[in-house]
Amino acid sequence: MSDNVLIPRLAIIGVGLIGGSLSLALKEAGAVGEVIGCGRGKPNLEKAIELGVIDSYRRDPAEAVKGADVVFLATPVQTLGLVTQQCLPGLQPGAIITDGGSVKGDVVKAIEPLLPEGVHFVPGHPIAGTENSGAEAAFPSLYHDKRCILTPTENTDPQALELIEQMWRTVGSNVVRMPLEKHDKILAAISHLPHMVAYSLVNAVGSYDHYEENILEYSAGGFRDFTRIASSDPTMWRDIAETNRDALLEMMEQFEKSLAELKADIAEGHGEKLFEFFLRSKQLRDAIL
Amino acid sequence: MSDNVLIPRLAIIGVGLIGGSLSLALKEAGAVGEVIGCGRGKPNLEKAIELGVIDSYRRDPAEAVKGADVVFLATPVQTLGLVTQQCLPGLQPGAIITDGGSVKGDVVKAIEPLLPEGVHFVPGHPIAGTENSGAEAAFPSLYHDKRCILTPTENTDPQALELIEQMWRTVGSNVVRMPLEKHDKILAAISHLPHMVAYSLVNAVGSYDHYEENILEYSAGGFRDFTRIASSDPTMWRDIAETNRDALLEMMEQFEKSLAELKADIAEGHGEKLFEFFLRSKQLRDAIL
Repeated sequence: MSDNVLIPRLAIIGVGLIGGSLSLALKEAGAVGEVIGCGRGKPNLEKAIELGVIDSYRRDPAEAVKGADVVFLATPVQTLGLVTQQCLPGLQPGAIITDGGSVKGDVVKAIEPLLPEGVHFVPGHPIAGTENSGAEAAFPSLYHDKRCILTPTENTDPQALELIEQMWRTVGSNVVRMPLEKHDKILAAISHLPHMVAYSLVNAVGSYDHYEENILEYSAGGFRDFTRIASSDPTMWRDIAETNRDALLEMMEQFEKSLAELKADIAEGHGEKLFEFFLRSKQLRDAIL
Repeated sequence: MSDNVLIPRLAIIGVGLIGGSLSLALKEAGAVGEVIGCGRGKPNLEKAIELGVIDSYRRDPAEAVKGADVVFLATPVQTLGLVTQQCLPGLQPGAIITDGGSVKGDVVKAIEPLLPEGVHFVPGHPIAGTENSGAEAAFPSLYHDKRCILTPTENTDPQALELIEQMWRTVGSNVVRMPLEKHDKILAAISHLPHMVAYSLVNAVGSYDHYEENILEYSAGGFRDFTRIASSDPTMWRDIAETNRDALLEMMEQFEKSLAELKADIAEGHGEKLFEFFLRSKQLRDAIL
């Protein structure tokens, strides 16, 4: 191990797609020394060692973080406060905790008050993912060319922030800093709302029981692509829906208004308005192709 | 040309993705003799000849259908009545008209009353497509392993129905017959509703202007996949929204109820209900993977 690696010792709490991919990418870049994993499932941790995702593991978070320069929390958002608490006894002075939670307001509220003097927290969120989970799903290019949002607060240590920013740059992310309120609204709009919509759509269509057969059987590629995100992990999305409630409800209302406008145009058979509505959406969509 | 080709002379009215792909597939199968195209855009028709999609074209529908055994109407749903009217003067006795419209109730209502004795109409809908259009978008395997729904009415000639069914089987489709009302409801659920939802979602998110930047810029793969269908042709979707109005409104209401249920669970922070909702959707979705 070279003396100038970015993170001599990294602890990953939650060795799944998110935590595992960070480890693999940092290893590939030669930016990390030893990686210690921690998580609830022993088979997953064994698999992670076998796949070279981590070097070793400890079952106790406080043990896993001993001597770690950086601790990456990659467990479901609602567990991050508890997990931080479990890590505390093992943290060395100067250790930096950072996370990958999709919600930042609730996470900062849960973690910051717990921290002793000399332990730093940098709230973060790499915007990347697939519908797969577990250490087996991890791959080193997951974060390549993806945005990573860091949401420092007035309590965030500037040097710790710099190091975490450099860590994400090293794995290929485009790092952006913004206030956590803004992060939570943007994510509600571009990620949380679409998931709620997809779940609701599949639910509505799948429970339409006027015919003997399941009408989902007729669905073609468009429907399958469109509803792919409804295959995401229910526990994770329950957590997100609970922790980013206010921003999500605001966006759901925005969406309901948009849908109600469209529905009124359809009911009135207002062809010109329908065309304009579809065209406006198409233009917005094509701009992000 | 062999004497036992299925369709010695085929006229395609509307040489785009749908009409062009049928022609290419029938040619590949050796099931068609001559293919005559007709459509509004001369450059598109010239291109179609260049690509081997059609053998020749006529600008006048009545000319295009002269001597045709089968006439495939592949223009937007709202034009199908008018196009049929334009074809009438050229149709030979025994000619079979069939269509690819995504809505069947309104189309049958528009076409059946126009037909003279001895000219047959078989209402159909191949469930296939991409977001591309025009003759250049056509490819012979478009219909392979896809469903094709035929919705014969009490007026449909059984032999004409048999031939059109054989035509779709020849290009690889799984042909299903059902009443047109059922077709229109199923399509409203699995195709028309998702398009309305995608258009509304992009509209709602794209017009959220609380920040200086366009928040769509932050969208990751999930959002892009999810909203791909909002890039579809606004004219086509205006037509569908107008012609399948009642079934679509029924499905939109079904969806609104589902979304409202979810929103209430989020507002109340009802974790268990949220989990069950997401799990039920995931199971429905995974069943059609």
